[in-house]
Amino acid sequence: MIVELISVGTEILLGNIVNTNAAFLSEECAKLGLACYYQTVVGDNEERLTETLKTALSRADIVILGGGLGPTQDDLTKEVAAKVCNKPMHLDEASKKHIEDYFNSKGVKIAENNWKQAMIPEDSVVLENPNGTAPGVIIEYGEKRVVLLPGPPNELIPMFNDSVKPYLRKLLPGIILSKTVKVCGIGESSVEKQIEDLINAQTNPTIATYAKTGEVHLRVTASAEDEAAAKKLLKPVVKELKNRFGTYIYSTDENVTLEMSIADLLIANDLTISTVESCSGGLLAGRLINVPGVSETFKTGFVTYSNKAKRKLVGVKKSTLEKYGAVSTQVAKEMAEGMHDVSKADVVLSTTGIAGPDGGSEQKPVGLVYICCYVRGRMTVKEYHLHGNRAKIRETAVAQALVLLRSCLLEYFSENTFGKE
Amino acid sequence: MIVELISVGTEILLGNIVNTNAAFLSEECAKLGLACYYQTVVGDNEERLTETLKTALSRADIVILGGGLGPTQDDLTKEVAAKVCNKPMHLDEASKKHIEDYFNSKGVKIAENNWKQAMIPEDSVVLENPNGTAPGVIIEYGEKRVVLLPGPPNELIPMFNDSVKPYLRKLLPGIILSKTVKVCGIGESSVEKQIEDLINAQTNPTIATYAKTGEVHLRVTASAEDEAAAKKLLKPVVKELKNRFGTYIYSTDENVTLEMSIADLLIANDLTISTVESCSGGLLAGRLINVPGVSETFKTGFVTYSNKAKRKLVGVKKSTLEKYGAVSTQVAKEMAEGMHDVSKADVVLSTTGIAGPDGGSEQKPVGLVYICCYVRGRMTVKEYHLHGNRAKIRETAVAQALVLLRSCLLEYFSENTFGKE
Repeated sequence: MIVELISVGTEILLGNIVNTNAAFLSEECAKLGLACYYQTVVGDNEERLTETLKTALSRADIVILGGGLGPTQDDLTKEVAAKVCNKPMHLDEASKKHIEDYFNSKGVKIAENNWKQAMIPEDSVVLENPNGTAPGVIIEYGEKRVVLLPGPPNELIPMFNDSVKPYLRKLLPGIILSKTVKVCGIGESSVEKQIEDLINAQTNPTIATYAKTGEVHLRVTASAEDEAAAKKLLKPVVKELKNRFGTYIYSTDENVTLEMSIADLLIANDLTISTVESCSGGLLAGRLINVPGVSETFKTGFVTYSNKAKRKLVGVKKSTLEKYGAVSTQVAKEMAEGMHDVSKADVVLSTTGIAGPDGGSEQKPVGLVYICCYVRGRMTVKEYHLHGNRAKIRETAVAQALVLLRSCLLEYFSENTFGKE
Repeated sequence: MIVELISVGTEILLGNIVNTNAAFLSEECAKLGLACYYQTVVGDNEERLTETLKTALSRADIVILGGGLGPTQDDLTKEVAAKVCNKPMHLDEASKKHIEDYFNSKGVKIAENNWKQAMIPEDSVVLENPNGTAPGVIIEYGEKRVVLLPGPPNELIPMFNDSVKPYLRKLLPGIILSKTVKVCGIGESSVEKQIEDLINAQTNPTIATYAKTGEVHLRVTASAEDEAAAKKLLKPVVKELKNRFGTYIYSTDENVTLEMSIADLLIANDLTISTVESCSGGLLAGRLINVPGVSETFKTGFVTYSNKAKRKLVGVKKSTLEKYGAVSTQVAKEMAEGMHDVSKADVVLSTTGIAGPDGGSEQKPVGLVYICCYVRGRMTVKEYHLHGNRAKIRETAVAQALVLLRSCLLEYFSENTFGKE
């Protein structure tokens, strides 16, 4: 089945906001096995929206529109869709009640134009919106479906997940099931090379690679009659990927991030961690602390951006700074050692580098970063040459620090069976 | 003049990447005074791309395509555009030379298919690509222009800024000039209310508001015959905005971020700063350190996520933690005081809060955050109720900490003329 996406909103055409809704919906539709050939953005303009919707209906089975369901005169997605599908509108009592309750709970007076949001086209399924006032709508237009969703991502995303996805699943013949294999520590091109034969031979399941900063995600997707059959198709392919990538795989759970998998490793092995950051300046701690419950393992984070702070807080020697410079293997090591002395953490990560745009030289160019990982007495320092602007270099340094940490932990565990000393 | 954007790439249709190019190009086109009514995303498919380009050319003066200029068989944007515009292709010697030089400098052997990138349609302007191998192209098709740009943002953005923007400017009658007034510390709806009369009365210049986390940007745009005339139009409106928003305005420079303006304030007044973070866990330091040259003012950052770290590193009292809990005015204060004692910084920011998803209670729900700002002996603590998921709450806490810091600094300066004690 073919799906087409239409995002409605002048603010997207003005570049005011990035169209993250389209990326979310596209990915979800791909997971459902729907083919998407076009995404269109159009403003809150009756004529252009009508034309765009008609074109989409001429080439797709399902058209999903996001945005333009608000209470103002400008918001006309629902009105246009009803007109194009020849469906008169009527007041939906349940939606009216929801709007009343919503405003009452916020103690806000209802403006007259809010009732517009309770008007629903005939032959429609109304989708509840627990995060706002505009209900979603699925218009059943012959064999076709027109799905209308509110624009704010915090309303659109849960509504799609909770109401639209189950609805579409029932519509689709058979089932589509995906499994994501998340790999870190190898580059995308190298990953692709190692599975070239699988990708070239693929029919069902298919394998798609998604490059992330410091990671590659491999999504294996099977389509089958039922869940059991889909799982059976996925199993050997996921197994083969596990064979090929081994410990480079940090998770096969869609919802587990690299920092979560690392926090799990640390907590399961009773290891505590501290960070001491120069160029990454807090972002590494920031990413680790994005894991709920990380306080069990995270001891302390220091941001020692200046040489003075490096000396005072973690005892980097003046002579080391003078001889090798702040961006050096030696300073990265002394930072990690010093942080271990101060915090007594089992594991320490340190970063020092030149994030630019200034401060680079021929010998030490912008993008040069040293990361040291200390694990119970053993130090590993690595040199990196990163690319991009200041923000990108810092983000990549954080990702590389996590990748290095994971590989040092695995090495430590392999030498200390069951993680015991 | 009307512009239309087409993004070419299956990876966008699969939701693999977010279409940030479209947001960038839309904003730049709006600044140039071009009206954009449609953005379309289409895959690397000859038939669909041909159809999309023809439709765009039927309703726009300028069509900008991003993506599909690579060396592989899949990349066919240039071939399709040449065909639609009836322009035969020829080998461009300068582009061929550039590709040779590029590969030689990287020490990589040139693959045969790379020469495809040096083929250029007749009646075209070739746009240099210092960041990659694919040159950009502007096809002059009667009165219309078809602009072809490489897909990677680090190639597309500089190429647009350096080559396309000056080209389009010459094409446009008169000039479009913008000035951005950046406001923090007031919400978007309140900003809009305060300038409702200006927005309702606007013709030239126009005023558009852009909500950012913790900030609102007001872009004033004038169109005129020449730069002097445009500046003359902008001046009174910018002056009026300055009157209305006063010290809420942190900059009128497009390139200055809130953290930059704060770092400037600190450096100009010889003030040093340290941070001690619980819920924001390093992200506040991380944002300050995104300012190049911040080492002049940034002393130390601590991440004290656990109660133990709060006690040990900045001396928060056990009794305070027990009596008021870690997320409280009192703990935020003791964290800031303690950090001042440790680092001797003139200014300290502390954060403590419940970022969720767990850890909330009826009395202290997820999203409750306390931020304390210490400026040379004076403490200000504020309570916040933030919304969103864990990442969003932490990001908003960081933005609010910067807004609070700025207002405390201004208050301090107003009481200590010229910032002297």
